[in-house]
Parts: sequence; C-alpha cells; structure tokens
Amino acid sequence: MNEPADLTVPSLGTRTVTSPLNLNTTSGDEIANFVEDSERLLMDATLKSFRRHCDAGTEPVSFEKAGPRAKIYFDPSKVKAAIVTCGGLCPGLNNVIRSLVAQLWFRYGVRSIFGIRYGFQGFIPDFGHSMLELSPALVGEIHELGGTILGSSRGSQDIGAIVDSLERLNVRVLFTVGGDGTLRGAQAIFEEITRRGLKIAVVGVPKTIDNDIPYISRTFGYDTAVDMATLAIRSAHVEAQGAPNGVGVVKLMGRHSGYIACSAALAMREVNLVLVPEQRFDLEGERGILTFLQQRLEARGHAVVVVAEGAGQDLFDATTGRDASGNVKLQNIGRFLSDRIKAHFKELGWEINLKYIDPSYIIRAAPANSKDAIFCGNLAEHAVHAAMAGKTGIVVGLWHDKFTHVPLLTATQGRKLVDLEGALWRSTLESTGQPPILHD
Amino acid sequence: MNEPADLTVPSLGTRTVTSPLNLNTTSGDEIANFVEDSERLLMDATLKSFRRHCDAGTEPVSFEKAGPRAKIYFDPSKVKAAIVTCGGLCPGLNNVIRSLVAQLWFRYGVRSIFGIRYGFQGFIPDFGHSMLELSPALVGEIHELGGTILGSSRGSQDIGAIVDSLERLNVRVLFTVGGDGTLRGAQAIFEEITRRGLKIAVVGVPKTIDNDIPYISRTFGYDTAVDMATLAIRSAHVEAQGAPNGVGVVKLMGRHSGYIACSAALAMREVNLVLVPEQRFDLEGERGILTFLQQRLEARGHAVVVVAEGAGQDLFDATTGRDASGNVKLQNIGRFLSDRIKAHFKELGWEINLKYIDPSYIIRAAPANSKDAIFCGNLAEHAVHAAMAGKTGIVVGLWHDKFTHVPLLTATQGRKLVDLEGALWRSTLESTGQPPILHD
Amino acid sequence: MNEPADLTVPSLGTRTVTSPLNLNTTSGDEIANFVEDSERLLMDATLKSFRRHCDAGTEPVSFEKAGPRAKIYFDPSKVKAAIVTCGGLCPGLNNVIRSLVAQLWFRYGVRSIFGIRYGFQGFIPDFGHSMLELSPALVGEIHELGGTILGSSRGSQDIGAIVDSLERLNVRVLFTVGGDGTLRGAQAIFEEITRRGLKIAVVGVPKTIDNDIPYISRTFGYDTAVDMATLAIRSAHVEAQGAPNGVGVVKLMGRHSGYIACSAALAMREVNLVLVPEQRFDLEGERGILTFLQQRLEARGHAVVVVAEGAGQDLFDATTGRDASGNVKLQNIGRFLSDRIKAHFKELGWEINLKYIDPSYIIRAAPANSKDAIFCGNLAEHAVHAAMAGKTGIVVGLWHDKFTHVPLLTATQGRKLVDLEGALWRSTLESTGQPPILHD
Amino acid sequence: MNEPADLTVPSLGTRTVTSPLNLNTTSGDEIANFVEDSERLLMDATLKSFRRHCDAGTEPVSFEKAGPRAKIYFDPSKVKAAIVTCGGLCPGLNNVIRSLVAQLWFRYGVRSIFGIRYGFQGFIPDFGHSMLELSPALVGEIHELGGTILGSSRGSQDIGAIVDSLERLNVRVLFTVGGDGTLRGAQAIFEEITRRGLKIAVVGVPKTIDNDIPYISRTFGYDTAVDMATLAIRSAHVEAQGAPNGVGVVKLMGRHSGYIACSAALAMREVNLVLVPEQRFDLEGERGILTFLQQRLEARGHAVVVVAEGAGQDLFDATTGRDASGNVKLQNIGRFLSDRIKAHFKELGWEINLKYIDPSYIIRAAPANSKDAIFCGNLAEHAVHAAMAGKTGIVVGLWHDKFTHVPLLTATQGRKLVDLEGALWRSTLESTGQPPILHD
Repeated sequence: MNEPADLTVPSLGTRTVTSPLNLNTTSGDEIANFVEDSERLLMDATLKSFRRHCDAGTEPVSFEKAGPRAKIYFDPSKVKAAIVTCGGLCPGLNNVIRSLVAQLWFRYGVRSIFGIRYGFQGFIPDFGHSMLELSPALVGEIHELGGTILGSSRGSQDIGAIVDSLERLNVRVLFTVGGDGTLRGAQAIFEEITRRGLKIAVVGVPKTIDNDIPYISRTFGYDTAVDMATLAIRSAHVEAQGAPNGVGVVKLMGRHSGYIACSAALAMREVNLVLVPEQRFDLEGERGILTFLQQRLEARGHAVVVVAEGAGQDLFDATTGRDASGNVKLQNIGRFLSDRIKAHFKELGWEINLKYIDPSYIIRAAPANSKDAIFCGNLAEHAVHAAMAGKTGIVVGLWHDKFTHVPLLTATQGRKLVDLEGALWRSTLESTGQPPILHD
Repeated sequence: MNEPADLTVPSLGTRTVTSPLNLNTTSGDEIANFVEDSERLLMDATLKSFRRHCDAGTEPVSFEKAGPRAKIYFDPSKVKAAIVTCGGLCPGLNNVIRSLVAQLWFRYGVRSIFGIRYGFQGFIPDFGHSMLELSPALVGEIHELGGTILGSSRGSQDIGAIVDSLERLNVRVLFTVGGDGTLRGAQAIFEEITRRGLKIAVVGVPKTIDNDIPYISRTFGYDTAVDMATLAIRSAHVEAQGAPNGVGVVKLMGRHSGYIACSAALAMREVNLVLVPEQRFDLEGERGILTFLQQRLEARGHAVVVVAEGAGQDLFDATTGRDASGNVKLQNIGRFLSDRIKAHFKELGWEINLKYIDPSYIIRAAPANSKDAIFCGNLAEHAVHAAMAGKTGIVVGLWHDKFTHVPLLTATQGRKLVDLEGALWRSTLESTGQPPILHD
Repeated sequence: MNEPADLTVPSLGTRTVTSPLNLNTTSGDEIANFVEDSERLLMDATLKSFRRHCDAGTEPVSFEKAGPRAKIYFDPSKVKAAIVTCGGLCPGLNNVIRSLVAQLWFRYGVRSIFGIRYGFQGFIPDFGHSMLELSPALVGEIHELGGTILGSSRGSQDIGAIVDSLERLNVRVLFTVGGDGTLRGAQAIFEEITRRGLKIAVVGVPKTIDNDIPYISRTFGYDTAVDMATLAIRSAHVEAQGAPNGVGVVKLMGRHSGYIACSAALAMREVNLVLVPEQRFDLEGERGILTFLQQRLEARGHAVVVVAEGAGQDLFDATTGRDASGNVKLQNIGRFLSDRIKAHFKELGWEINLKYIDPSYIIRAAPANSKDAIFCGNLAEHAVHAAMAGKTGIVVGLWHDKFTHVPLLTATQGRKLVDLEGALWRSTLESTGQPPILHD
Repeated sequence: MNEPADLTVPSLGTRTVTSPLNLNTTSGDEIANFVEDSERLLMDATLKSFRRHCDAGTEPVSFEKAGPRAKIYFDPSKVKAAIVTCGGLCPGLNNVIRSLVAQLWFRYGVRSIFGIRYGFQGFIPDFGHSMLELSPALVGEIHELGGTILGSSRGSQDIGAIVDSLERLNVRVLFTVGGDGTLRGAQAIFEEITRRGLKIAVVGVPKTIDNDIPYISRTFGYDTAVDMATLAIRSAHVEAQGAPNGVGVVKLMGRHSGYIACSAALAMREVNLVLVPEQRFDLEGERGILTFLQQRLEARGHAVVVVAEGAGQDLFDATTGRDASGNVKLQNIGRFLSDRIKAHFKELGWEINLKYIDPSYIIRAAPANSKDAIFCGNLAEHAVHAAMAGKTGIVVGLWHDKFTHVPLLTATQGRKLVDLEGALWRSTLESTGQPPILHD
C-alpha cells in the first residue's frame, strides 16, 4: 500500500473539560490510562523501514493512537449525540450501536442520543422517518440480533440538508457507521460543518464486510462473514462429494477485494480454486480455469470453486450502471461461471453435477460472532473517546492490533486489495493447489 | 389421507434362526423385548373411528409394528448386506449408513457390508464405480458430516442389471435409502427378485426432505431442514427490517407438499405470507398476493414471504421436462415472484428493497440435528430388524410415534399433502395473519 | 402407563360468543376449522386394544382434542389475561409467552395481558414485584433469547392470596407455565376459584425439561435439552479419546425419568453406558458398572458415561431434605460416580483420565430450537383457544402428535418413566452395547 | 513486556536444496514470494521507540519473519517427519495436524510422516503406543472434529529416550504442538540433538488456550475458547435474570493470565465483574467484591461474575502440589467464590439464586472456529517452511499480524499477562463498570 499524504487528525479546538473517566479512580490509582495525542504507531514496522528512515533522517509515516484523553472538548451533560448506520447490512451493526450508547451513557454521562432511521435518509424530513431516542434499556439485547435496529439505506442525501438537520437537533457529536460511500458522505458533512463554523464532531466507524478500507487492517463484520461463508463452502464440498463429477460453486462478497474469498477458503480447506477481483483469469485456453477444472475432475472426481462477486468482470461486455450508492453494478459472475462450466462439460459429453450457492444475504444478516462483537465494542468505545475529545473528520482504525485515528480523507483514498505477492495469497495458493497464473 | 388398499407385509418365508439379540439376556431377563407380527397400530386413532368400525363390525386399517423378532430368517454369520443411497442429498444420510452398519455388525454379527457408490449407478458395472467395504471403523465419525459418504445419483437404472449385481455379489439383504423414485425402484427390484425366486430382502429407509411419503408421519432430514430454513428466514427478516419497504423472499424445498415452508414459518414467527403447492394463489386482483403485500408494507413497512418451490407452478405456461429421476422440472417460483413483486411496486412508484434467498443446498447438505440423528438411528435399527427377520418389499415407517412396516407398494401411492383444513395450515394462518383465500 | 381415572374436561359453562376467528373467513370459506368437544383421541391406538374394547363393549380411554371452538365463553374485548412462568428455566419459555400474547392479541383481540413476575411470588404483594403489561411490541424478539422475560421462582405461595390477586386485577384467563409443582399449584388455584364461584379459566402449559408428565407424550424444552446435551457428550467423547484411558462422565437432567439421558445418548452414538433413575445399578460386583468400565477400557482405551441426575440415589445413605418447590434434594451422582471410578482405577494402579462435565445450566438457559419453537407456539395457541372457550382446570397436552386437553388432576398423578421393556430403552441398549442388567 | 535477550534463530546449517515451491512457477512468474532471513519485524512499533533508538543509534529488537525460503536444507524426497501433540486439549489441534500433513505432502513432497500417539509418551516404547502413518487421506476431515486424533498426554518423558526414538525412526523434522511445558520439552530435545550433533530440526507450534506465551501475540484455540465461553456467559446471564437476586458465576480458563476472561466478557457485554490472576482482590471490606455484588443486586437485581481459574489463589492457604506437567494445581476458585457469595447473603438474610457454571471441557473440546482454523493452517504452513529450511529450536509466532520465528528459549521465559494499565483491561473495566480497585 502506498504511503498516505497526510495522517494529521483534525480537531475542534482546545480541550478544557476534565474527562469523567477520572471519576473511576481514587487518589493515587492511575486506572484510566489516558492516551496522549503524541502517541503514534509506525505504519511500516519492518526493520528495513527503520533503517531507511533512520539513515535518511526522515520521519516515518505513523498513525495517531486512539483512546481516552485526560481532557475532553465537550461537556457530557450538555451534549446531544446522533448515530446513523448506512449502506448494506453487515454483522455487528447492532453491537456498534449498543456500545456507542453504553459508552456515551455510562462512561461519559451523555443522556441524549438520537438514532437516525434508514441511513442518511433519516436526516431528510421529506422521507418522514421519525427518530429513535436511544437508551441502554432500549439497546440491551440488540447484539443478539443481526442487522441494524436503526435501519439503513444506500445512497447519499443533500449534505446541506443533513447539516441543517444536525443544527436543528442541536447535535454535537455525530457517529456515522458505514463503508466507502458513507465515509465520503461523512467527509462532506465534516467539510460543510467546517465551512459553517459549527462545533460538531464527525467520527466514523468503518463498516465494510469486504475489508477493503485503506490504512485500516480489519473492519467489523468481516470475521463473521468468513465464519458464515464456511457454511456455504462446507455445503458446496458436501454436494460436490455427493455426486459423480460434483462441482460446487460459491459466490462470496468482495466487489474489489478478495479477502473474504481467500480467508473463507483458508478456513475450510476444501476449496480447489479461488477467483478474486485482483487477479485476471481466462475461461478457455491451456491456463484457463475450464482446463484446470477438467484436470481436477479427472484426478479427484469433484471440485469446489469460490468466486468473489467482483472477480472476472472483464469477461462481461460492459457494466450496466451504478446503484443508489454510486457503486458500479456488477454482473453476476457466479451464475455466469456456473453456466459456462456446465456448457463446457456438456460439450465434452461429461455428466457433471454443478451446484451454485450464493449465501450473501445469510452472511450479511448474521449476528456478529465473538471476535466481531469484541471488535465492535472496542471501535465504539474509541469512537466515543475520540468524539468527546473533539476529534473530527476521522474514522476509527486498527493497525498492528492497536486502535488509531485515521483522517476520513485518507481512508477514502483508494482501496485495500489482496496483494498477489503477499502472504494471504500465497497461503491461498498453497491451500487450493491452483496454478498461480490463470490466463495466457 | 385415503385408506390404503393393503398393508400386508411381504415376507421371505418361515423364520427359523434364533435372534442373536437373545445373547444379551441372561436366564430370566426379558430384555430383548421382541415384537410379534400380530402387534399392529390403528391408522385412525380417533374415538369416532373406533365407534364406526366397532358398530359396523369392520376391521380398522392398521400398520404392522416394527421391532426385533425372536426368530429371524437369515443366519447373520453368512449374510452379506448392501446399502445404497439415492436421489438428492438430505441431512441424516450418513447417520443412517452408520447405524445400519453398527446394527448389522454389533447386534447381529454381520461382517460383510457393501456400500454401493453413487446410487443405483453403483450396481451397474459400466459406470466403473468401485464398492466400499463398510465397517464400524470406517463409519465411526461420518455422522458429524453432511451428505453421504457413498455418494448418490438421480434416476433409475436397469432393474435386471441391478438384480444381476445382487446375485453376483451374493447379497441377501439390501437397504435402499431414498425417496419416491427410490422406493419405486426398490419395489421393482423386489418384484424382479420375487420373479427370479431369490431369497433377498429389500428394505427401504424413507428419505424425503419434503416429508411427503404417504402413510409415514415423518421422514428423516425434514426436521433438520426446518432448522436450517429458519436461518434463511431470520436473514430475510433482518434484511426486510433493515431497509425502507424491505421485502424478504425465501424459497424453500417442497415440490408437492408445503411442510417445510409451513413448519419453518412456525419456527421463526416473522413470516407474513406462506405459499405452498397445495393452495392456489393469484398475483393480481383484490385477493391476490400483490395487494396483500401492498397492505402489509403500508401498515408495517416490511414483509417476509416464504414460498415452497412447487407453489404457483400454474402461473407458468408449461413445464419444461423431467429430470433424471423422472421428476417434473419446476420453474423457479422464487425468482419469478421476486421479479413480479419488484415490477409491481416499480409500477406504483414505490421504492422497495427486495432480497431473495434460496438456501436449498445449504439446507440439504447440513449434518442431521439431534432429533434427526436419533430418528435416523431408530430407522436404521428397525430396517435391520426387519430385513434380518425376512421382511421384504417394505419401507420402515412411523405412525403415532411408533415404528412400522409399510409395503413399498403402498408408500409409493400418492403423496402426503398439507391438509388445508387441518391443524398445521390453521396454525400457519394464525401465525402469519395472511388471508385464508389468495385468489378470486 | 396406567389408564387414568377420568379425562373429563372441566368448563366454566355455556359458550355463547361467536369466535372472532370466523372473521377471517368470507362467506363460503370454511377456513377456521373449528374443533368440536366430541372429537377425542384414543389413548391406546393398538389393534389389540381396539379388539379388547370392541369385544367387551367397553369405551376405550380417550383425550379431548384441543383446537379453536366455534363458540367461545369470554368476550375478548373485555377479558384480562395473566401469564405466569414458574420453576426452573427451560428452553422455550419466551416462545410460549410470545405466542400466548400474539394469539390473544391478534387472533382474539384481547388487549390487556399481565405478565406476572418471578412465578407465583408475583401475585403476592409482599414481594413487591411489579407486573409487566405485555404487548406484541414488547415480546417481538424474545424468542431469540433463553430464559423467561417474566422471571421465575420455585415454590408455591398462599393459594388464597393468589386468587385474591386475580380478583383484584379482574383477571379472567390465567395461563400457568410450569412443571409438576406448578400444575399442582394451578389445580389448587382452580379449586379455590371454583369454591369462590368465580368465572376464571385456569389453563396450564406443561413445562418439564425432563419430559415426565403423565398422559402427555412430549413437553417443550425437552428437544432443545437433548440438542444441547449432545454438545456435552461430544466434548466427553473428544476428551476420552484424547488421553490414554480417557473416561468422560456427563451428568444430565432427569430427576425421576431418564428421557434426556437416553435420547442424548441416541443422538450422539458415542456413549458406552447410560444410567437412569428407572434402573438400579451396582458399582461393585461382576455385573457392577466398574467391572463394565474396566472391560471397556481394556478393549477400547476410552469410555463415555451419561448419568441422569436422579440415577443411583439409592447409593447414598439418605436424602438431605427438599428444595423450595418441595422436590427432594438429590445427591450429586455425577461427582460421586466420578470419584468412585477414579478411586477404583487408582486402586488397580491404572492411570486413567476422567473428565466430568455438568452442562445443566447451559442446557436449560438455551433458546428453543426450531422443533421446540414450533411446539411452544402450538401449545400457546391451543392454550388460548381452550381458555377463551371456557375450558379450565386443564393443561394442554400432546398425544399421537395431536394436541389435547388433559385435566390438571390427571396430569399430576404419577410420572411418566422410561419403560425398561419399551423401544426407547431397547434402542439405548443397542446403541451403547451396555449389559441389560447392572446389578447382581 | 520486557525485551528479550536474544531473538537469533538457530539453524542446522547451509541451505543447498532449491525449494520445490518454485515448481509452481513458470518462467518469469515470481509467485512463490520467498522470504529472506534478513526480513525482520520491530517488536516495538511506536514512533517513540523509533525516535529513541534512532537518536541513540541503537538497534531495536526485532523478530525474524517466517515464510518459505528459496533454498531449503532438507531434500523432501528423503525426509521423514514426526508430529506430536502434548498437554491439555485445545481447539485447532486437528487443524494443525491436517495442515502440517498437507503442507509436507503436497507442497514439499514429503511422503513419510509419523503421528506420535499420546504426547511424548508415544516416543517411549514402554508405553506401547503404536504410531500412526499420516497421509492426506487419513486426515481429510479431522478439522471438523475437536480434540486431537493423535491423543495427548501431560508431563515430560526422558529426553534421551525421545531423541533415541527420533534416531531410530530416522526422523529429520519434528513438530511439537503444545504449550509452556511442551516448548520447554522441545528446547531440551533440541539441546540433546545439538549435543549429539544430529541434523534434526525441532519446530514448535505454540498451543496455549490461555494465550500466555511471551513474544507471541496470539496462540491458536484462544479465539474459539472465547467464542465458546460466551455460551456459558449467556447462560449465566439468562439464569441471573430469570430469578430474584439471580447471580451467575462462570469459571473460565486462565491459570496465570486473564485473557479469556476479559475477552469473553467483552464479547458478551453482560458481565458485571471480571476477576483475573493479574489483579488482587478481597472478598470482604469496603472495596471487596462481596460489597460490590451487594450494591449491584440492590441496584439491578441480578449479576454476572466471570472468574479466571487462576484468580484469587492467594485466598487459599496453600497450594496442593503439581500435576503431571509440573503445573501448580490450582484451587477451585469458582466453587470457593460461589460458596462465599452464598454464605455472605445467607448471613444478610437475603434470598439469592446463584448458579455456578464451569464450561472448561466443553470449551477445550470444541472444533476450531473459522478464525482459528485459518490461523492453525497458517501456523502449520510456516512451521513446515521453517523446518524444511533447516530452522530449529524455534516456535512459530505472530507479531503485528505477521508470522515470525521465535527461539524456544525466548518463548519459554516468563508469561504474557494482561496489562492492568493497558487497553484490554481498560475496555474490560469500561464494559463491566466494576471498580478498578478491589482490595483495601
């Protein structure tokens, strides 16, 4: 990944309020473990980078560490907060909502928390969505359920109208939980707030089941997605083994990045071919995947293929437009591939039994698993610490297993992709035994 | 259900061998609890039926009870057994295989058990499938996995060639695990065996995830299917709630019978409309389902629809042929319905968010749940008891929670359907709140 | 099981109100499928019983069928209902509560439903437990959670004070969800109501994880308990296999009846010894279980034992009193057995690795599985149908897979036990391979 | 954590064999992505550390990166490998075994792999455990099962005899999968091998469910353990809510380190008190936990306590010896605490309902979850890469999400503990709301 231009964290101004987290401590007990703004983490933790920078006398790129600050910007007793969830469903949304509420309420003493309904639509009066007053009692058990109790929607809305709404509601702290598009929306809101000279903190919680946000090593929901995806792969494997020349094809999430496909294949090591958006592949030809499948069936009598939804899009003539969030609408590579495989073997006169499985909605509607539940709680805690300290225009990130503050501007530049020369792809190849090159 | 013409159980002849289950008992311990052929269960257990028959002096229809017999037909030390699994995958196949092997081996002392590969294909030398020698060690952990270790295939094969193969292998006891088509195949094998005057017992274990075999109250895999189906319904519910005018459509198994659809809807009481093959429905019109959905969205803002794969087939122009097992190929009612719902609301200018979920392969490839695991074990035990006692031309059934012997001929006549005037459908209507009539 | 003295269902009197379930139907549509009081199910469905009764001219014992009646007793718009959950936790309690509320509210139009807190304590003002006003919104998602949102408690309370409370609240329909003790309490309440000449219907929903209520073939929670118990047995099996001379001992519920132990052993066919309250066993001696275990370890190197909590109580000197519900406090047979096994092999100089697992609380706090979820919904529907029709002093039962009305007096006489000469125990013996007799 | 004295990786000598992983590539395709020994990762990735070392001109501590080497030490066609699993069960053992075999067999072409039975016992002829010949077919489905197919045992064996056995079997590559004691054993074996001048690589895969190995950020099984532990916490929460003054006490693994207790509490945010070995606590007194629980019950009526097995050991008079592995035998703090809580409230005259849950065996016998399955596969791959390259006396580690080589000597010095001033403990306190100080 390229080094980002700037990792400086915007702030609303001087912090003057003593953090209520001090209340937990008694004299002499240093328990709150406040973090200072100067604490930073190196982006590149290799010895080689150390030597290069040290020898050249240059400052290595680093992230600001997240965590509670000893002094905060807002007086908790007066602050109104708002939470909005945007984009497609993702495991853990309710955990994030629940922990944001709990952290605001119990740790900081904030008593006014608006839940915005159906994404950015909820800010626009025309849609007529009423708000939810959030409290610990209301959100007590929601982590056991998938989805988001606030609802969500795709697409942006008029930024001016959103900021009007924030002003009207007197919101001082806005948490936007969403992916790529949402982070760009949050950045636009942040800019409009700055333009108007308002003192409103905008803090993002990064949500992308595809795990493709740059400068953030993991996003919530991804781990649960891999968990749930194994259910589909196991089924594909069972179906493939259960019939003569059985072939199981599983389409998984991954518009631009093949992380889920690779990780799910590594979790259920029964996959013989993983196709990701990062790697070009041919159908026909000596190195094409039809030849590979034919060899596999000859040798073993069954095969399992996992394909990320964004893979092989170059095999289609042209794209068919964009969805409400501005995402390019992808062609269904899973069905396309299944049809082509069936046609190929029919032509050869082979009887094969192909089963195509698309588990996407079952994956994304699942409740968070333990790992994601912990992660969502931590993200929410750090988002609240950041916002209360007056940090703004940022998203909470993770790097080297530590929580960080990443400027929204940086987190929306480019995408994180599976490195075809890196360890994840190497393990994937080692696990599947597929040829490294799939085109002529 | 109509009363069957005949429930007399065919037999290979006089039983002369003392059951080895006696070995378990010591003098005076009546532990084996042998069942006599004269023990029978009434098909109709109502007081009304009692009075009718008693008053008229007629014999009520009854099933022969399954269970170990004190005298058996085959000498276990000399018997060779064969097991074949046919048709689509179904949770519990491996449990049945494992328990057949364990019961033959440990209880009766049979030491030669052939596992036939890929359904009836495995009997036909041309296919080149080799057999598996089954033993307790080989099948020790297979119940933890979905599918069938033997593999399966659809479609019948030449009956003469199958019986030739049984003769060649010197098989005396054949267990066929499969549904409608398989039971018909087993009946044909039974008839050919009878024609040739062979002493080979043919005993079926009924496998239909749809639960639609007549005169058998439950078949294995069905309960697990309902379990797994709730995963899809929960996802549809979460998706429907997560977006403005969210609609979740779930297609479930059920070619002719809506049992899975009804039961899954009752297990996850979040479903607003259940469509089954047994009930006609219109799309358009005052009582059509589009009107109902429109009212539901107006009232609540989201809806969940469950549709059995065999529902609404009359909405298509014509069928498109039959599959290898001779089943009529169904049109995809799930996609058809989803498209029509989307078109309807688009025409109305409503923005709806419809998610279509087809969990079929994930359902049928699942390992058996506890209920089915117990059931499969019991079915297998009773199948072995029956075959060793020389019963033939039968399938093991369940009635009033007791295991029975049902002649293959009877079990292949007609189908068990959801009674639209019965308790299951009434509960379904009470749970969904859908109108009882869906057509003009 | 002995035949009960009387299965006549008590009633509050003449039914005069037309059931609102008719509202669902339009002219000519016979959809509500009302049940008549005269519809009854034979207790004994064997042909032998038919012949005996028919020949002797005697009336066979039969149960009244549950279901909606065309005429009901209460005017739904005026009725107040109350729900109380008592005794130990059991999977499905929340499903029952949710379905009682949904059925009362949506089907019958009842709008006043009290949730009584912490069992019968909730009726007694001294405890200071406030009531919950139940509505569909409040109970919408509770079926996803284990336990009971109403809370529960053991033990009876003053019957007069409970009826005073019902009068004060103007409750006309009381649903008691509980086991043995609760059914006796409900019977006492019913009698006091009758004595006072009140028109209050008392309908029980039978809750016993042990499945030991007589004349009722299955109770809710039992199926989930078996499901969850397999988790413990699988662990015991893994532990036993993972060490030299590994022994896994699992204690399961079953104070008087070994149903859970037997069924769980049949669901996970890795168990070598099942001990139930119904069967006496010795530790020492040729037929004692220590000898059996020694032989098993010699032959296979590992063993799994499942023991019901009520088994082997005769091995203790005396009982130590009763708990708040009046149940005899059992000695911990699981630990006792584990200690004795360890001592035995230590004496022999064998190194064994015994792991003792008690999963009781994890089992009973689980949410209902699909089977129980369906069952709980059906039980609740039928309880509401019964109460609205003025049936009282009854508990909803199940017989031959049909729902029935069982008088409370009958359901509290004796217990349902595992028949040591029946099919369940035979299957258990066949699965474990344990000797049928375990004492000299 | 203190900086280790030395992170230099021992090696058997010059690498001369070209890695077979090159076979995957075609001319010009740089696919194998070999790692060089000079690639190292900084232990401390903070900017502060960078500045300190750069300013002082000192070399920061760093780990050697794991991964395939272009040149390897052993000729795969001639190498014999051995795998041994030691100590208590841990989720993922079978995944490690399966991936070691697959990696050796398919990637490197090793065809002779011994599975040693029952830990180090399997090397000692006296125990009479025979070896398993491991192959991909044999280990194909074992990842679906908990435990280890090799079996395990506690305790060390005679090091000389183990090395004799390695010599006798002509083993060149030994993989030891185990925790603290096993790593010390592996180090002793490595030293004896070195003393004898043998060319045998010893590579450890770190297994500690407690996650307490120093210089390794995560060990396998830990993530699954947290997953499974939430089952017990959920049950405790349901039980606590289900009764007046309900208290749930859950004992979790963690002999010296409270990682599982903290993480499980963060995954199921229903816990009110977490007790870990790292923090002293009092029972009595103003800051003691009994006072805290009393306040909690007064305020909310129920409470959930999670206690790590190693917590509060100072409350016992003395320890009672060591187990076969040399671990100090801990007192049962879970039962002790439960008894003391019950006694305390009995004395106060409060009726409380305490449920004690010990899910340890259910946790450790579980199959690996997806996260651990991936992790186990990666650990095994890297262990094979390391051993084939002639690395020895090391354990495969993880640091900053990258795989590393850690000298056995370093990995056995001290333990990783929860930092009471770090982020995990801060989050735990924020989640539970418990006071930071629990003693006077």
